[in-house]
Amino acid sequence: MPRISDRAEVMPASPIRKLVPLADAAKARGVKVYHLNIGQPDLPTPQEGLDALKNIDRHILEYSPSEGYRSLREKMVSYYDRYGISVTPDDIIVTTGGSEAVMMAFMTCLNPGDEIIVPEPTYANYMSFAISAGAVVRPVRSTIENGFALPSVESFETLINEKTRGILICNPNNPTGYLYTREELEKIRDLVKRYDLYLFSDEVYREYVYTDLPYVSACHLEGIEENVIMMDSVSKRYSECGIRIGALITKNKSVHDAVLKMCQARLSPPLVGQIVAEASIDAPKEYIDNIYHEYVERRNCLVEGLNKIPGVYSPMPMGAFYTIARLPIDDCDKFCAWCLTDFEYEGETVMTAPASGFYSDRSHGRNEVRIAYVLKREKLERALFILEKALEAYNAKH
Amino acid sequence: MPRISDRAEVMPASPIRKLVPLADAAKARGVKVYHLNIGQPDLPTPQEGLDALKNIDRHILEYSPSEGYRSLREKMVSYYDRYGISVTPDDIIVTTGGSEAVMMAFMTCLNPGDEIIVPEPTYANYMSFAISAGAVVRPVRSTIENGFALPSVESFETLINEKTRGILICNPNNPTGYLYTREELEKIRDLVKRYDLYLFSDEVYREYVYTDLPYVSACHLEGIEENVIMMDSVSKRYSECGIRIGALITKNKSVHDAVLKMCQARLSPPLVGQIVAEASIDAPKEYIDNIYHEYVERRNCLVEGLNKIPGVYSPMPMGAFYTIARLPIDDCDKFCAWCLTDFEYEGETVMTAPASGFYSDRSHGRNEVRIAYVLKREKLERALFILEKALEAYNAKH
Repeated sequence: MPRISDRAEVMPASPIRKLVPLADAAKARGVKVYHLNIGQPDLPTPQEGLDALKNIDRHILEYSPSEGYRSLREKMVSYYDRYGISVTPDDIIVTTGGSEAVMMAFMTCLNPGDEIIVPEPTYANYMSFAISAGAVVRPVRSTIENGFALPSVESFETLINEKTRGILICNPNNPTGYLYTREELEKIRDLVKRYDLYLFSDEVYREYVYTDLPYVSACHLEGIEENVIMMDSVSKRYSECGIRIGALITKNKSVHDAVLKMCQARLSPPLVGQIVAEASIDAPKEYIDNIYHEYVERRNCLVEGLNKIPGVYSPMPMGAFYTIARLPIDDCDKFCAWCLTDFEYEGETVMTAPASGFYSDRSHGRNEVRIAYVLKREKLERALFILEKALEAYNAKH
Repeated sequence: MPRISDRAEVMPASPIRKLVPLADAAKARGVKVYHLNIGQPDLPTPQEGLDALKNIDRHILEYSPSEGYRSLREKMVSYYDRYGISVTPDDIIVTTGGSEAVMMAFMTCLNPGDEIIVPEPTYANYMSFAISAGAVVRPVRSTIENGFALPSVESFETLINEKTRGILICNPNNPTGYLYTREELEKIRDLVKRYDLYLFSDEVYREYVYTDLPYVSACHLEGIEENVIMMDSVSKRYSECGIRIGALITKNKSVHDAVLKMCQARLSPPLVGQIVAEASIDAPKEYIDNIYHEYVERRNCLVEGLNKIPGVYSPMPMGAFYTIARLPIDDCDKFCAWCLTDFEYEGETVMTAPASGFYSDRSHGRNEVRIAYVLKREKLERALFILEKALEAYNAKH
């Protein structure tokens, strides 16, 4: 039997996916599981998007252009304009979800052995895409004690060597909910400029900023326009993760053209998804406002509730819809699995994501979990209560 | 400005894509272009698929499982059963088009520097995916003189060395329309077994076999069950290229699990596409039969017509909906571009794909073009007439 590739060997399994069969088994036993583990919003897709889906009147569901429909890219231009991000349709390549944008960015910009510096904890799948490209993730650690603020510029700079090709940020951040300040981003900008690096910026949670601080995009940073590659997605913004529409945005013509060649090889992004995404951009301001206020309420409910549980600490996330909480536990992988296999309270339990999976060195974050606040408030309150009971029971036994 | 990756540098641009702006310019001048260059069928998507699209009644277009919906995989099992291909839902991973299946197969099975042997001419994008994985395509040449039959086993065997990891076939073949015989496939099987190679088999044109020879799948070959990775797509079968649904099928558990890890990193295949694909498998036999007969007619019309043009030769393709034709020209790249930039006859011209792009050494196939018969018969006849006029005019000038 022929062997699998080295990259396939070292590709990490998703930390959440290991728990899925355990959750399925719990449900099969009749236990209700509160899903605090996933980024699938429970909020509706905009009616504009659903209507566009209903109104598709084609006899052939044909290929679309490899770079995506021009009408969608033009609509995206007007969307970005709302955020003071000035791009043209030719700066945008429509991708199959934000995931493909990250993958294409890495494949286009990074050689095997090249390094990127990534603040940790970080979205686990970046590591998988880096491995696919043969690139090496060099982490700089942010810590729960200071709310996962950007580590010092010095901690980035000590990692920079002749193999360093870029810095990757996710802003607002998954999994921490941190929002980078202009000052922090300007320090990143200066590093990027000084060492001629790429700045990969994942900004899929742009809508969800809960502080008075201004949202600063990597595209707002002056003097590094050719270095910035922004990755985006409509998944979280419009609660349409399933349509798989994202975008890679860059003013760097060499990168754009190289990404386009790779996109031509995979032929086209999803046709129906593009139609839904284009219509969704027309969702009225109230749609986003309602969702925004819903998330603010949920965040406050969740974080206040977490901090009331003895031994639990969560910083107040400033964006996205996740928080990393520190729990009074010995091992998050063990605890998260135990909740599904050995615990229930009044027939209910919780599923959270072990934070160890968000660090490249999995010995970090051992007493942290990621919690997504994508459930209605009353469910969140109940889930917090169940979590408290779980912690009591877990610590009584371990 | 940071440099792009080496793989991005060497990634070939699609041979057809270079012609697209020329075709657009011709159309802008009012010239009608007959598209003989593309594999986008003009035949309708099955009504079952279109109805399923209309009937989607969801409020959230959410993520689906990374391996695809189980109901779709179960439906695929029943579909494969019609062809005597025995698989289970757990052997199938739903991918974002057949393209992603090829990419995932290469990323999972091939290390940088590993070699795969591929009969040429071949589907150009295999090379792009091989480059993405850092793998090397070693071609064995088939020739128009013997209808692009499989080259001798010896020609494969002389290429096998310690870096050889697999053989890739496309059957029925794009771009040649060749259908491998059982005898040929058993020779491949023996090689695969002897050298413990992967057999990557792209079988997306399974429905379109126009001879009395039986269709033999790589999955029918005994003794190499763990070596076979079949790549499939619903694009061509149901004229729904835009929904981006394909599949990677293997009984090799290590490969399956490794592919699944990569699929988890990209989260999920398109939701809507899966719904359409699942319904399309229920298309009545008449749907496939009608399309089949339409293609037989078109093939006969095209190939007979081509062979009537002085100096033109096309073998009779046994499957798929392409042929490679030899034209009385000096340079296919030049001729295909010239048809769009410098030629018209009664306000019309033709667009064909230079065959040079289907060879890894682009000095091959200089007097060959690929022609897709995805136009209605009357249009094909007119396109043949225009092609004849183009050849006359071209050779009068060059």
